[in-house]
Amino acid sequence: MVRSTLDDLARDAVQRQLQPTLVDLIDLMLTGKQLHWNVTGPLFKPLHEQLDEFVDVWRLWSDDVAERLTAVGVSPDGRVQHVADQTTADAVPDGWIDDSKVVSLLAERLDAFAQRLRQRVQEVEDADLATQDLLIEILQGVEEQLWMISAQER
Amino acid sequence: MVRSTLDDLARDAVQRQLQPTLVDLIDLMLTGKQLHWNVTGPLFKPLHEQLDEFVDVWRLWSDDVAERLTAVGVSPDGRVQHVADQTTADAVPDGWIDDSKVVSLLAERLDAFAQRLRQRVQEVEDADLATQDLLIEILQGVEEQLWMISAQER
Amino acid sequence: MVRSTLDDLARDAVQRQLQPTLVDLIDLMLTGKQLHWNVTGPLFKPLHEQLDEFVDVWRLWSDDVAERLTAVGVSPDGRVQHVADQTTADAVPDGWIDDSKVVSLLAERLDAFAQRLRQRVQEVEDADLATQDLLIEILQGVEEQLWMISAQER
Amino acid sequence: MVRSTLDDLARDAVQRQLQPTLVDLIDLMLTGKQLHWNVTGPLFKPLHEQLDEFVDVWRLWSDDVAERLTAVGVSPDGRVQHVADQTTADAVPDGWIDDSKVVSLLAERLDAFAQRLRQRVQEVEDADLATQDLLIEILQGVEEQLWMISAQER
Amino acid sequence: MVRSTLDDLARDAVQRQLQPTLVDLIDLMLTGKQLHWNVTGPLFKPLHEQLDEFVDVWRLWSDDVAERLTAVGVSPDGRVQHVADQTTADAVPDGWIDDSKVVSLLAERLDAFAQRLRQRVQEVEDADLATQDLLIEILQGVEEQLWMISAQER
Amino acid sequence: MVRSTLDDLARDAVQRQLQPTLVDLIDLMLTGKQLHWNVTGPLFKPLHEQLDEFVDVWRLWSDDVAERLTAVGVSPDGRVQHVADQTTADAVPDGWIDDSKVVSLLAERLDAFAQRLRQRVQEVEDADLATQDLLIEILQGVEEQLWMISAQER
Amino acid sequence: MVRSTLDDLARDAVQRQLQPTLVDLIDLMLTGKQLHWNVTGPLFKPLHEQLDEFVDVWRLWSDDVAERLTAVGVSPDGRVQHVADQTTADAVPDGWIDDSKVVSLLAERLDAFAQRLRQRVQEVEDADLATQDLLIEILQGVEEQLWMISAQER
Amino acid sequence: MVRSTLDDLARDAVQRQLQPTLVDLIDLMLTGKQLHWNVTGPLFKPLHEQLDEFVDVWRLWSDDVAERLTAVGVSPDGRVQHVADQTTADAVPDGWIDDSKVVSLLAERLDAFAQRLRQRVQEVEDADLATQDLLIEILQGVEEQLWMISAQER
Amino acid sequence: MVRSTLDDLARDAVQRQLQPTLVDLIDLMLTGKQLHWNVTGPLFKPLHEQLDEFVDVWRLWSDDVAERLTAVGVSPDGRVQHVADQTTADAVPDGWIDDSKVVSLLAERLDAFAQRLRQRVQEVEDADLATQDLLIEILQGVEEQLWMISAQER
Amino acid sequence: MVRSTLDDLARDAVQRQLQPTLVDLIDLMLTGKQLHWNVTGPLFKPLHEQLDEFVDVWRLWSDDVAERLTAVGVSPDGRVQHVADQTTADAVPDGWIDDSKVVSLLAERLDAFAQRLRQRVQEVEDADLATQDLLIEILQGVEEQLWMISAQER
Amino acid sequence: MVRSTLDDLARDAVQRQLQPTLVDLIDLMLTGKQLHWNVTGPLFKPLHEQLDEFVDVWRLWSDDVAERLTAVGVSPDGRVQHVADQTTADAVPDGWIDDSKVVSLLAERLDAFAQRLRQRVQEVEDADLATQDLLIEILQGVEEQLWMISAQER
Amino acid sequence: MVRSTLDDLARDAVQRQLQPTLVDLIDLMLTGKQLHWNVTGPLFKPLHEQLDEFVDVWRLWSDDVAERLTAVGVSPDGRVQHVADQTTADAVPDGWIDDSKVVSLLAERLDAFAQRLRQRVQEVEDADLATQDLLIEILQGVEEQLWMISAQER
Repeated sequence: MVRSTLDDLARDAVQRQLQPTLVDLIDLMLTGKQLHWNVTGPLFKPLHEQLDEFVDVWRLWSDDVAERLTAVGVSPDGRVQHVADQTTADAVPDGWIDDSKVVSLLAERLDAFAQRLRQRVQEVEDADLATQDLLIEILQGVEEQLWMISAQER
Repeated sequence: MVRSTLDDLARDAVQRQLQPTLVDLIDLMLTGKQLHWNVTGPLFKPLHEQLDEFVDVWRLWSDDVAERLTAVGVSPDGRVQHVADQTTADAVPDGWIDDSKVVSLLAERLDAFAQRLRQRVQEVEDADLATQDLLIEILQGVEEQLWMISAQER
Repeated sequence: MVRSTLDDLARDAVQRQLQPTLVDLIDLMLTGKQLHWNVTGPLFKPLHEQLDEFVDVWRLWSDDVAERLTAVGVSPDGRVQHVADQTTADAVPDGWIDDSKVVSLLAERLDAFAQRLRQRVQEVEDADLATQDLLIEILQGVEEQLWMISAQER
Repeated sequence: MVRSTLDDLARDAVQRQLQPTLVDLIDLMLTGKQLHWNVTGPLFKPLHEQLDEFVDVWRLWSDDVAERLTAVGVSPDGRVQHVADQTTADAVPDGWIDDSKVVSLLAERLDAFAQRLRQRVQEVEDADLATQDLLIEILQGVEEQLWMISAQER
Repeated sequence: MVRSTLDDLARDAVQRQLQPTLVDLIDLMLTGKQLHWNVTGPLFKPLHEQLDEFVDVWRLWSDDVAERLTAVGVSPDGRVQHVADQTTADAVPDGWIDDSKVVSLLAERLDAFAQRLRQRVQEVEDADLATQDLLIEILQGVEEQLWMISAQER
Repeated sequence: MVRSTLDDLARDAVQRQLQPTLVDLIDLMLTGKQLHWNVTGPLFKPLHEQLDEFVDVWRLWSDDVAERLTAVGVSPDGRVQHVADQTTADAVPDGWIDDSKVVSLLAERLDAFAQRLRQRVQEVEDADLATQDLLIEILQGVEEQLWMISAQER
Repeated sequence: MVRSTLDDLARDAVQRQLQPTLVDLIDLMLTGKQLHWNVTGPLFKPLHEQLDEFVDVWRLWSDDVAERLTAVGVSPDGRVQHVADQTTADAVPDGWIDDSKVVSLLAERLDAFAQRLRQRVQEVEDADLATQDLLIEILQGVEEQLWMISAQER
Repeated sequence: MVRSTLDDLARDAVQRQLQPTLVDLIDLMLTGKQLHWNVTGPLFKPLHEQLDEFVDVWRLWSDDVAERLTAVGVSPDGRVQHVADQTTADAVPDGWIDDSKVVSLLAERLDAFAQRLRQRVQEVEDADLATQDLLIEILQGVEEQLWMISAQER
Repeated sequence: MVRSTLDDLARDAVQRQLQPTLVDLIDLMLTGKQLHWNVTGPLFKPLHEQLDEFVDVWRLWSDDVAERLTAVGVSPDGRVQHVADQTTADAVPDGWIDDSKVVSLLAERLDAFAQRLRQRVQEVEDADLATQDLLIEILQGVEEQLWMISAQER
Repeated sequence: MVRSTLDDLARDAVQRQLQPTLVDLIDLMLTGKQLHWNVTGPLFKPLHEQLDEFVDVWRLWSDDVAERLTAVGVSPDGRVQHVADQTTADAVPDGWIDDSKVVSLLAERLDAFAQRLRQRVQEVEDADLATQDLLIEILQGVEEQLWMISAQER
Repeated sequence: MVRSTLDDLARDAVQRQLQPTLVDLIDLMLTGKQLHWNVTGPLFKPLHEQLDEFVDVWRLWSDDVAERLTAVGVSPDGRVQHVADQTTADAVPDGWIDDSKVVSLLAERLDAFAQRLRQRVQEVEDADLATQDLLIEILQGVEEQLWMISAQER
Repeated sequence: MVRSTLDDLARDAVQRQLQPTLVDLIDLMLTGKQLHWNVTGPLFKPLHEQLDEFVDVWRLWSDDVAERLTAVGVSPDGRVQHVADQTTADAVPDGWIDDSKVVSLLAERLDAFAQRLRQRVQEVEDADLATQDLLIEILQGVEEQLWMISAQER
């Protein structure tokens, strides 16, 4: 229904890397909000604000990833049931969370996500350079966030 | 850990109305994005844009609801697994969706959500007027969106 | 054609309070412009400006009221013939009007309008809290304007 | 009371062209809002928005016309009763209006208004070039709106 | 001198709730600035900034409360001698104040203020719904601030 | 040195109308500032502000007039000695000036200036329609200012 | 298909003046960009910037001209093949161009364009004053640009 | 606790001039708001607005003065009880105040405050030029406000 | 005349890919404007607006491409005659064009352009990674536009 | 009529330094505009722009100087006849002026003005430090402008 | 080459105070960035942001100081080799730096810099009051920064 | 202390290319400021401004480069002593510099820097595509600046 300039093989390859990235980003976005609301401790304010800045970026990226899928003719799936099924990250604990725990939880998540992104950058190269370029841009951003969070680990 | 100016009874009553509203709004937000990406047909452009405007509003409301929960000393739960479990709305179909189908799907959802909100406005009145005030404001907005969408039904 | 989440009884009750409020606001808006153009005297400048600020607010409220009507499934009527027929306020005199006369004319109008709004706030309570909330917000604003004008009466 | 740089003859000529233009614009402004609230059908969103953009322009022009009257020493009359009496356009039907009907109603109105403006541009020329200039500017705008609306007629 | 749309009884009731709220807010505003200037410790920067954000909000609310008094025809009293006499809160200690002490002092104040506001919301209901609406809005805000501060308590 | 698309006759005609208009506007601009600084009386504030708004407009017009001269290849002359020599308006009195006196002085000046502009609009018509258009635009503005000031005359 | 308020004769007359003006402006716009990219010499920076400012203005005018055509019911033609065929101006040389050469090339073009515009202003007068008004406005702007460029000729 | 680059003698001298200036400014700020709310009479609007503009400036200055104290290592005291004790100005009367009375009350206050500032500028010179510079800047502003108010005295 | 950091071979390779891209983008820009003015039918408004948004993007890209050519020392050629000669796309039909026809015409063009860009991305890789990066960015954008248009095809 | 916090001696001393500075700035402002309009030569654009930036600054300073006069109770005189009489600078030549001549004329003027300001800074010290502070600020600015212009002298 | 309004003696005196201040500010600017990038620990975020705010200010001041040098006809020297040679501050350690260490390092630097500035303010007084004024302004800012940092020392 | 998603080999490779780029950019930034302050000649204004625009870009890039280092877990070194030691570019001459000399000095620097960047783009490819992407973006920008400067060489 939506035109694609990629052949079927390339389109499948792109979908295999972007669809799980969309899932990762939506999960990260909701997780970020969860921590934004539930963080406690003396560092509440800077963490509460930093989480919101990160969530804004993750939301923009999730939109970029979904719209890259559409741009190559693939329907993206960001429905809550799909994300809950497919995400590979464990849920963060419910209830209030101490500030230093927030930092370590987030550092773990970002570290693992960056590792997955590095692999996807490699795997998509032959299929579509434009998709690779988008994943590289997200990787740059995630690694910058990883620095900012891991620098706060005690 | 976080102070509350409500007694336990009132706090529980507030939580019973606000926590499911948070779930509704997060589900609506993700559903709105799903439709924003997957709508097709001659009315693609106005619907694609209108969905994004609605999603922005739902996101702000989800933040207001979650922060009202924290303001009365209750930890909000907006994790993806929790939302997928608790939402009472069916998932929209996957894949591309025709423009008129998008309109009818959304009209159904907003209609049902407005009905639930009307009931919650009544039920929270004795527990906390400040929470009721927030729910009334959201109800006003949802009913305005319902008009804008149902006016487009053929 | 447009969905409503109110039953017929409540919808009629809402219409009975909002439709005349829409008429009041459109008349006030045109009256405000008439005074804005026709005021004379040493206090021309502050009154000319204040009238425009008020008109801007009345226009926004008229939109809110009309869109609340649509939101509960009622078609609003703001046509010039309908407003001329239904308004309960006398027309202001034609021609240039002295600054102190502008103040007293406006104070009278706002006073009477606030009284009507107070009654409508009461009467709509059982039918729809969301409509009541809108009327209360307008009442707050009208009473603030009444202060600002009546403080200028000699 | 307000000074005029025109002699009596010229001032009367200006008033004969501008006062009915003021009536036309105020009626158009209220009609535009009526359609903005009552339009239904698949093209609800683009029409709802376009009507608001037009109403904003008509309001600015009505102010320009009224203030040109004051600038030549004539008191303008924009009271609701006067506009209802003097307007030459029929009221649009009450209740919800289908999108294609909105387009044809508006195209008719703008067409007729542009014709009247063309004539007024001619008739005011000898009396006051500054007034003619204002009417030409409005004519340009109305004809642009006429194109935008008539291009949507089926 | 300034008109009122309330009868004497209602006007007195409104004054009994709003005038002490004005005193509370002015005292809070000056206290907030005092802490803003005198906070010390590793958390200086986030607290220094957060206090300024809170002070801005308290100032806006104090204006809203005073102008609601005027809107019902009552002269507000915000003179420094009056505030010093009437405030029920103890002065914070003079000199530099440690960051964790700032947090606990502020949490105490906001907690007590929210409790007073809850009571005033109840007491003003019969006299004036528009005043109640303003107090509910302030209560929502104060409880949100209370969360943000008490979340930082060790 | 600067190219002109007008023949010598037309260029001289344009210069004869625009150069004195430039002198008028620069004098008005300095006079406006003189009154802005020296006005006294209860209406100080609105007049002090209105004078500054007018001065801003006169400055923009003086730039338009001078640049229209350059655009037809004529060097404009706005030097202080030239303006002092050529202006036909009397100097306003030195020292503090009462508010009502400021109004009458300004009304006189604007009235006389508008009369001169009306004549220049006629005289430049055969030479250059583009210059006429600029003078008409300034005339519209001056007559609007004349209304605003003469409406304040007691 | 698009309504027109002009009779056939007047519409043809308007088309005869506006369609070649559209061609002139699109050619000028592309020429301006060509010079913007290819200018060299010590005055590169001010010319590079000035050309971009001019191109922005020419683009806005080309839109105004095309939309005036549509406003009188004539379909405008701005396709590249049509512009290349119909333009009366010679192409500027390819490759890098010296700064003083850029100035003289542009002065020539603007001079010739202004001459053509002067004639069109005359010829359209009987057919449509609103179109004439637009052409006068463009003429004012072109002559201002001509001054700014010819003032730089050595 | 906070470092100072001044010796003890200079620091005490700075505190002796700045601490009472802080008290003056906080009192002025609350007094300005009191008049802003309680002014009545035909000049209500310009005075109501001017008072708010002044209050904004006084608040910024009070912050500058307090932060200059901290910058030289002195803890500022702006608590309401302290200000009420230390201020040398009489309280303005309670209740509504006539516009001309507002002008004369304010002129008196600003005159007296400017006199005190002139003296403090002299007395702080030997201790700290940076503090003197701040006081000079405030003096400039206060004298400008004094002109604007005393120009309105009848 | 302009320095280049590429050797002659690489520079020629870059020119072979970028110069035709510049031609494509200028043609697309003019075509987009042609459709923007000539579209008719019920979907006039959303298409009219979307075309303008696309044209803005194409103009920015044409500038980026031309300035990348200059950045490697090659003079870009964007003259109208050159574009008309070199473009490989057929002209769109003249006159008014139906909305669904606009969609299909544009979908065809964007599809073909994206295919050409994909090839150029490959061919420029060995010569200059910085040029490739620019082409990838444009490809991402064109494919996103292709989705948005092809989603509207019936 | 306007209050002063200076004794007569000091007030006269301030007037002796500020009134001629006002004359200097108004003359400079008009001279700057004259050069802005009449400059020719290859450096037209940067000089035309720089002159306008300077004129904006001189206008702001002239306002500061005049309002400092009012702030100490002295009526400022900025009427065109007074400025023409009192200015000590020769008029610049009439007609078009070559770019390098503009630079040298302006450098001379700024140099002489800065010298006069230096002397006035000394002479006003005993009378009023607040006036001295204003003159120092202007001196800083004038010397910065002198650098920017004299750096362009050949 | 650049004019100076100071005699040689005064110019040398100004240079002796401003040139080392320029060196101090450039070193501080680079040091601030170094700490901005290398800070670690739980207080990473507030310090990382505060350092950037300070660096922005230091950069503006370094520009002011350099341009004051040019304004008195002295060529400023801000080359990296010169700064490295002339700076009197020790380099901060390389590698990651703990948050509390960042605070103490910065407090030391600002303290020492403020002491040097105090001395320079004295020494430049006889040579040039305008330079002294600039140094006083910088001193005010540095002491405010010193408070903000030293308040964070444990 | 800061996490890295690169292995040691890749991290070292990234550091070998980015750390010298950081040194280059800081040196360029200070050099740009030095030229911004010391340029003289008729082209002072456009060069003075262009240098500041370039410096702003270099500063942003230096931040990007340093933060990419941190993002892969390497502490960046931007201390003045380190930059002075490691930079490979010769210092520009001290004192005032003629405009054409500024152009040639800068063209040389940018040419050499672009050459070094081209090499680093190649060398970092195997280690980290995200770093390569950043270097390509900087290369694009530097080559654009090189065009803009070398186009000004005589």
